[in-house]
Amino acid sequence: MTGNIVAEISVVPIGTGGTGLSQYIAACIDILDGRKDLSYQLTPMGTIIEGPIDKIIEVARQMHEVPFNQGILRVVTTLKIDERRDELLTMSGKVESVMNKRQSAMGKQR
Amino acid sequence: MTGNIVAEISVVPIGTGGTGLSQYIAACIDILDGRKDLSYQLTPMGTIIEGPIDKIIEVARQMHEVPFNQGILRVVTTLKIDERRDELLTMSGKVESVMNKRQSAMGKQR
Amino acid sequence: MTGNIVAEISVVPIGTGGTGLSQYIAACIDILDGRKDLSYQLTPMGTIIEGPIDKIIEVARQMHEVPFNQGILRVVTTLKIDERRDELLTMSGKVESVMNKRQSAMGKQR
Amino acid sequence: MTGNIVAEISVVPIGTGGTGLSQYIAACIDILDGRKDLSYQLTPMGTIIEGPIDKIIEVARQMHEVPFNQGILRVVTTLKIDERRDELLTMSGKVESVMNKRQSAMGKQR
Repeated sequence: MTGNIVAEISVVPIGTGGTGLSQYIAACIDILDGRKDLSYQLTPMGTIIEGPIDKIIEVARQMHEVPFNQGILRVVTTLKIDERRDELLTMSGKVESVMNKRQSAMGKQR
Repeated sequence: MTGNIVAEISVVPIGTGGTGLSQYIAACIDILDGRKDLSYQLTPMGTIIEGPIDKIIEVARQMHEVPFNQGILRVVTTLKIDERRDELLTMSGKVESVMNKRQSAMGKQR
Repeated sequence: MTGNIVAEISVVPIGTGGTGLSQYIAACIDILDGRKDLSYQLTPMGTIIEGPIDKIIEVARQMHEVPFNQGILRVVTTLKIDERRDELLTMSGKVESVMNKRQSAMGKQR
Repeated sequence: MTGNIVAEISVVPIGTGGTGLSQYIAACIDILDGRKDLSYQLTPMGTIIEGPIDKIIEVARQMHEVPFNQGILRVVTTLKIDERRDELLTMSGKVESVMNKRQSAMGKQR
């Protein structure tokens, strides 16, 4: 059984002339915004997506295409997938789990 | 001139027996919590840090050590550094820059 | 037009009990060995693949599945894709291009 | 006790104007070439280094600086460290271990 997974994608256009990349990333985010089957969270270092693995691979493929459509001739895309089959991974659950461990550890210190 | 940079770190203990990793990540975060010279943000896929590059490398080295201190015998750590020297990169600035590009693009569509 | 690309894949099983991962990686390589449409190169830090992007995504999906088939309950897979559309990227070409730059730079020093 | 580790580094200059990156990578390799305390292997997707962790972090820091010295204003560097403390990791040992698992598995099939 495979349910939702959590993944991170980073799309880096090469040979842009300028140092700013936000216009390319903004266009990548547009692809995610149109999907109701996926949740996402934009971070300072990439985009985190939650959903079925095959849907995530599908949008990663589309996001990789975005800078080419904007005239860029080389793109380096990194997709990191974290899948767990003994229990469901969610974006919020992963962060809460770490915070809970921290609070319980602090509780012990008192 | 080099000022603050933005980096992402992921520490993965290998051979944990169980699937949960949050206890190790919680202990990694403790290292960041004690520092006044660095800002950080815990995401579902790693930890993003803002500060001087040498301080970030220093804490990355310490975070890599954490699972070994908890008895783990193999650790895979990934540190991704994004440094820009024509203007200052910040965690909030990077996300805002993308959001601004999205709003201005939407503005044009109307 | 999109031809062959070069990608790197790393499949990390979590919660293995032991520190050795080579049995899982060996089984991942079996998937690549059966394909005539892809070239690959095993490195100490991952597997590099050359071929059409959609074929590479297809085998990455299969390689991610391998540790689950061996009883592992959590897998972190990273796929990094480098695609260039102004000229063809190949595994050997990328390395040769760096070596050529080094030789010509050394030539200038004399 | 910590001995040699194996790491992978990738240095990506942003805003290069052109799509080719080999001139920057060639200059990064020069840094490794001068060191007798580290072994390295150039792959189509990065550079793999074997040696003491602190020496590797030191050269990673220097390699990240290279494109800035060549006039680039933004650099994204990724350093992935694989450290094992129950036995020594080497570049050749890691690949051989996978190949041995493959041969023994093939032996069983006969």
